[in-house]
Amino acid sequence: MSFDLVLLGGTGDLAWRKLLPALFQAFRHGSLPADGRIVGVAREALDDAAYRAWVAQRLGGVEGEKRPSPDEFARFSALLHYVRADLSNPADYAALAARLRQREAQAVVLYLATAPALFARVAEQLGAAGLATPRTRIVLEKPLGHDLASNRAINATVLRHFAEHQVFRIDHYLGKPSVQNLLALRFGNALFEPLWRRETIANIQITMAETLGVEKRGSFYDGTGALRDMVQNHALQLLCAIGMEPPANAGADAIRDEKLKVLRSLRPWTPDTLARDVVRGQYGAGQINGERVAGYRDESGVDPASRTETFVALRTEINNWRWAGVPFYLRTGKRLAAREAFIVVNFRPTPHAIFRTPADGANRLVIHLQPRDGLDLHLFAAAQAPRGPAAQHPLPLQPAQSTSAPLSPVSLNMDFDQRFGTERVGAYERLLLDVLAGRLNLFVRSDEQEAAWAWVEPILHAWQHAEDGPRHYAAGTWGPSAASALVARDAQCWTEEC
Amino acid sequence: MSFDLVLLGGTGDLAWRKLLPALFQAFRHGSLPADGRIVGVAREALDDAAYRAWVAQRLGGVEGEKRPSPDEFARFSALLHYVRADLSNPADYAALAARLRQREAQAVVLYLATAPALFARVAEQLGAAGLATPRTRIVLEKPLGHDLASNRAINATVLRHFAEHQVFRIDHYLGKPSVQNLLALRFGNALFEPLWRRETIANIQITMAETLGVEKRGSFYDGTGALRDMVQNHALQLLCAIGMEPPANAGADAIRDEKLKVLRSLRPWTPDTLARDVVRGQYGAGQINGERVAGYRDESGVDPASRTETFVALRTEINNWRWAGVPFYLRTGKRLAAREAFIVVNFRPTPHAIFRTPADGANRLVIHLQPRDGLDLHLFAAAQAPRGPAAQHPLPLQPAQSTSAPLSPVSLNMDFDQRFGTERVGAYERLLLDVLAGRLNLFVRSDEQEAAWAWVEPILHAWQHAEDGPRHYAAGTWGPSAASALVARDAQCWTEEC
Repeated sequence: MSFDLVLLGGTGDLAWRKLLPALFQAFRHGSLPADGRIVGVAREALDDAAYRAWVAQRLGGVEGEKRPSPDEFARFSALLHYVRADLSNPADYAALAARLRQREAQAVVLYLATAPALFARVAEQLGAAGLATPRTRIVLEKPLGHDLASNRAINATVLRHFAEHQVFRIDHYLGKPSVQNLLALRFGNALFEPLWRRETIANIQITMAETLGVEKRGSFYDGTGALRDMVQNHALQLLCAIGMEPPANAGADAIRDEKLKVLRSLRPWTPDTLARDVVRGQYGAGQINGERVAGYRDESGVDPASRTETFVALRTEINNWRWAGVPFYLRTGKRLAAREAFIVVNFRPTPHAIFRTPADGANRLVIHLQPRDGLDLHLFAAAQAPRGPAAQHPLPLQPAQSTSAPLSPVSLNMDFDQRFGTERVGAYERLLLDVLAGRLNLFVRSDEQEAAWAWVEPILHAWQHAEDGPRHYAAGTWGPSAASALVARDAQCWTEEC
Repeated sequence: MSFDLVLLGGTGDLAWRKLLPALFQAFRHGSLPADGRIVGVAREALDDAAYRAWVAQRLGGVEGEKRPSPDEFARFSALLHYVRADLSNPADYAALAARLRQREAQAVVLYLATAPALFARVAEQLGAAGLATPRTRIVLEKPLGHDLASNRAINATVLRHFAEHQVFRIDHYLGKPSVQNLLALRFGNALFEPLWRRETIANIQITMAETLGVEKRGSFYDGTGALRDMVQNHALQLLCAIGMEPPANAGADAIRDEKLKVLRSLRPWTPDTLARDVVRGQYGAGQINGERVAGYRDESGVDPASRTETFVALRTEINNWRWAGVPFYLRTGKRLAAREAFIVVNFRPTPHAIFRTPADGANRLVIHLQPRDGLDLHLFAAAQAPRGPAAQHPLPLQPAQSTSAPLSPVSLNMDFDQRFGTERVGAYERLLLDVLAGRLNLFVRSDEQEAAWAWVEPILHAWQHAEDGPRHYAAGTWGPSAASALVARDAQCWTEEC
């Protein structure tokens, strides 16, 4: 089996940081088909040898046992090729087409690792150069647009030349083993499905918290914000994985059809819910891990009067039979108190309590996504038997310590990294292999993406026209207090506040 | 608050092995009401001082940190008293009554730690001596009879003098923290109840396996057998705890009413089911932990032609809406491959599998009672995302290792001893304190006991009239192969054979 994997933007940041290391890992794991070429495409005046040398630098910089041996790198290096092309110049696409035509690889993957602004233009030119054949797959990185209209425009252009099943839209969050595992847990076990519904679940909380600020991406981030950067894509994908109905099979379309149904069932926004159920914040100066850090508006590249949100918390519902009335709380932000991504499934309390349980006495399943990857199931148990009342008739004689002890919290734990350590495959490695294998399961379909944009767009509009900007929060906290109030209104709390 | 705890059989085996150490532990934990007397009653010519010296020997023989300091023992010792009495001599009860009348303790506990054959007679005499007052509680050890008629006879005699709420029938298995915890788990958590039914559960297995043989109890055991010794009481009590409906409160009668309903809902035996669903076995010589051990018929005190069973496995069902059709497998025996008591809840497989699961791919909850005390929840997860099929249209290009990996078993674990270690209280300590407190929850009501006897009696009859005796099994195995066949008929397996 032969393939050509074309990295458009082959000397860019994404190729350097993620794609080339991931391809090398796949090679080392024996997962890359042998008869393949990896073709870097960029403006720089390089040839194959120079490109190989550049890649060698990158892989040499990998730490520890991952650093390749000279022999290993030599074998990997033989896969690397380079085509010089200015992607804004239509004439240069012909050279690329010619190079690819040298051999008729059974699969040609066109990976757009370029500036997002170029996506539509590059897709157009690839098509015009005859590179959109049935053997071609095209890979697009986020962000695909900055609102519904621009997303639609990119998708429309791409879909003029490529069929939907040829388009691999990457949400790298879906490549994380812990996120992939959500569907395995839900649909590979008979235990969860009977519990996974409004009758049993009180609410679901999705948290994606970072301690980092905007780092060197200030200028990009200031034009984007947390809603576009994290909620429209990653958070909603997690919500879909948790909320979707069981698909009829594990095929990409069966799964994506179910995710689409969730997105289209999200409670539509009204002026009331927009005002009440969405909180945006922007971090000020504060402390992270004992170190003083600057406020957002003082970050380099950021407008000193910026109204861009670095934090979003919102409450929504899925309007269907399974979930009607169950709050889904989503929360993400930069410069928060911890770097943690996790999903909390809060179960309802027992309908009738015959034993004393602690005040917040309800079961809880925590799915840790990052940095820990595992499950905690929080239950209640008794150190001793919960005591019933004494018999009424004989004189009750109470020994000194006989007051009824409440049940105590206990937890059942599992750590996926510990369990699967060496079998785990990195997100990009996994996604690249799936592109080569033509597996679309972990990629986002255009209608999904558009439904997600359609749902966040009213929030963007409301913010644009709001008099107030985002609420202030100090770096190193869990965001503005309004985020706590949002949950407290339902008599609930975020895990760390319970 | 004052009490008199009267140990009838105060120098006997049970007092020596269990009751006096448990009372001392309760004293040391500060759980014994201060104004109490522990009154040993036996035939030996002792006085208080001699009895205290005898108890001192026992507690001095306790190992490690449990050994009392002289000061501690002196304080405990002050509680100890002795009354010499021959329990077969009616006249001697007057002396006991006189001694107790010296002070009017608010609670008088009469603990029958005597030979079971004496129960009815002693109860009768206690009544005749005016010792059955509203302040009295009577404690009875097993075995209470050897069949339904003899059990009824004892209960009838006892209940002529004492009200049901004054009678504490001990099943020491109910005193184990792990067993007590069954109700806390089921009814203190909202998670289990929706799963706890025929729609979700394939079968339930209760195993109580010993590696010991009959030791010094050969003669007693040969007249008893595993069905009377373990199934009629302990195994059925576990089955009740697992199978009962949620009681309306944690009071003794609410709980015992629900247990009684289970016992009365057990599938009645027919000649067919007696032949098919019950397996009895008797161990022959074999190996336990690498050591050669004798067969049952060669044990001292055992009839060399004995047909007494040392192993029972049976299949039953609970005929109600919750459990109809769900097999409950019970198994107990001596000289088995391991010393382990545990309950396995085998869930049904997912109704529809979209991922590959291992051949025996169903969830399982294991409740370990002994020697480990904890929970294991067996689930399936994916080291990598379960792979869907490749998209149909582009040429599928399969990388070398792309074959769809099945889900892998993972388990969530909890260890109660680790979690609650120091808070745990021994079975007899707990039960004695409950007697003093007048809490009947962990004691067996007469109607429960009679229902259990009524259900096992057809098995006893069938065996009595059977031509064949028990099946042979080698010591150190899991019993006769017919026990495996019993489960295999339902296309199931015992955990260790799966």
